[in-house]
Amino acid sequence: MESASRDELFQDFAPGGKYADIVGIYHEHESSHKIGLPDRQMVYAFPQSVKWIAHKGAGYDQFDVVACKERGIGLSNTPGAVNDATATTAVYLLIATMRNFSICERSLRAGTFKPPHVERASHDLTGRTLGILGLGCIGIRFAEMIRPFQMRIVYHNRRRAQDAPDYCEYFEDLEKMLRIVDVLSVHVPLTRDTVGFVGEDMIRAMKPGGIIINTARGKIVDEEAMLRALEDGHLASVGLDVFPDEPKINPRLLQLSNTTLLPHVGTENQDTRRKMEVKALTNLKDFVISGKGQNLVAECR
Amino acid sequence: MESASRDELFQDFAPGGKYADIVGIYHEHESSHKIGLPDRQMVYAFPQSVKWIAHKGAGYDQFDVVACKERGIGLSNTPGAVNDATATTAVYLLIATMRNFSICERSLRAGTFKPPHVERASHDLTGRTLGILGLGCIGIRFAEMIRPFQMRIVYHNRRRAQDAPDYCEYFEDLEKMLRIVDVLSVHVPLTRDTVGFVGEDMIRAMKPGGIIINTARGKIVDEEAMLRALEDGHLASVGLDVFPDEPKINPRLLQLSNTTLLPHVGTENQDTRRKMEVKALTNLKDFVISGKGQNLVAECR
Repeated sequence: MESASRDELFQDFAPGGKYADIVGIYHEHESSHKIGLPDRQMVYAFPQSVKWIAHKGAGYDQFDVVACKERGIGLSNTPGAVNDATATTAVYLLIATMRNFSICERSLRAGTFKPPHVERASHDLTGRTLGILGLGCIGIRFAEMIRPFQMRIVYHNRRRAQDAPDYCEYFEDLEKMLRIVDVLSVHVPLTRDTVGFVGEDMIRAMKPGGIIINTARGKIVDEEAMLRALEDGHLASVGLDVFPDEPKINPRLLQLSNTTLLPHVGTENQDTRRKMEVKALTNLKDFVISGKGQNLVAECR
Repeated sequence: MESASRDELFQDFAPGGKYADIVGIYHEHESSHKIGLPDRQMVYAFPQSVKWIAHKGAGYDQFDVVACKERGIGLSNTPGAVNDATATTAVYLLIATMRNFSICERSLRAGTFKPPHVERASHDLTGRTLGILGLGCIGIRFAEMIRPFQMRIVYHNRRRAQDAPDYCEYFEDLEKMLRIVDVLSVHVPLTRDTVGFVGEDMIRAMKPGGIIINTARGKIVDEEAMLRALEDGHLASVGLDVFPDEPKINPRLLQLSNTTLLPHVGTENQDTRRKMEVKALTNLKDFVISGKGQNLVAECR
């Protein structure tokens, strides 16, 4: 689309506009810089003819899915395409936090070579317990990648995952799981139910010295509760690729030394972006050709 | 040992000194700050009674092994104990360099969130080729950890490794291997034969855009040749835990953005250090009790 602003786009969508008869839309997050978020207002600005939106991305929390459903528009995402890249990012954050490698590199670059106490503060992955919150496609790929490190891998979903590998132990009781994990990795989608889901109680249920890593969405973790736990030493470290108010970073996170912080680059590489694009465009093509594309999101089924 | 300096230690070793009759020595790298390196001079300063040195560490390049052999002293190291931690460090550097995560974190901390071109410069591990130079215990552990990422794994040793996993392809011809690898990971020990082994010719035999990671010893890579290849863009990136003149870092490495630099912390964690200590002390105990310990280094056999 060539519309230069949200207003211009809405005019182009309106009867007589250049997009008045479109049936499908391909959508990238990057467009929001120009046209804003696909909220209720935008969904209702789409021409009546629009029946499919093919979003390039696994997370689709920016969309007003209720409005899409009301208008009979199918929304597809690109689940499988992001698994490798996101799970790899979680592996990186897991190693970085347990071994204090981010602190080490900052120390080296500041001219002091090794930071003091790095040996005392750091641990092997081997033999420690990793808790996966939300064992979906990305969580399973993460578990596969961590398996050779010989960690104990446990997970919590509302229901036992049918396709869970046999080396992933299911905990129906989330609190019981939290009490035994050394690292908690967040892999649930952001929905109205999961905003602030990892909150004060969950964090304090973890053992002192625990670690949280988050490659899902910043708002799933209660940032204030997490910061308090970091500042009073209950959490040893956090590894984050996502933040509640991106691209803004809470300055307290930058002041703490025991944080590894990435600028939401979980899927940011040539190969994965291509896989995502091909998947999203294929979903759109399938819709145009056959009236139905793949990867319709749960809320639109 | 309580000797406060190298001179005092030598006096304590001498006839009548408090260590004049010792038969075995436990050695840590950290002691070099106080007493210097275990070179020819030190080995010849040991009392005649010394028959075993149990070194805590896998690499023993600081020792004058020829002098040890001449004096009939057995030198043991702690090979297996470091495998997990060192291989984990290599995994971290591999992800950090292929995905540009170190640059990303520096960009975020500098207040710019995402660096430009990170997507274009970054790659998934999946489907790329990892070349392991020296498939010993650490190289094999590294291959095991990388296997779930679905990289092609190739290796070069002087001879085919008997215990190589079947998914590691052997290249007798090193140059042929270099031509196909996306990432070269160095796992050979530092000896007189391997100083500068990864030199100009080897680096230029790699495809443009290649990556080198080194968790072995800094002097194995010709730093000048590596810096030139980074500066002219032949190498896309390097990930280093070791440097030729530690703890000094070549300032050109710090000026380049596409480097991930750790302050030689490959084994720096509680669990691995304990494993290394227990192994080294067990080697010494076995020698004292039975006259022979485990893990005698190749040159002393």
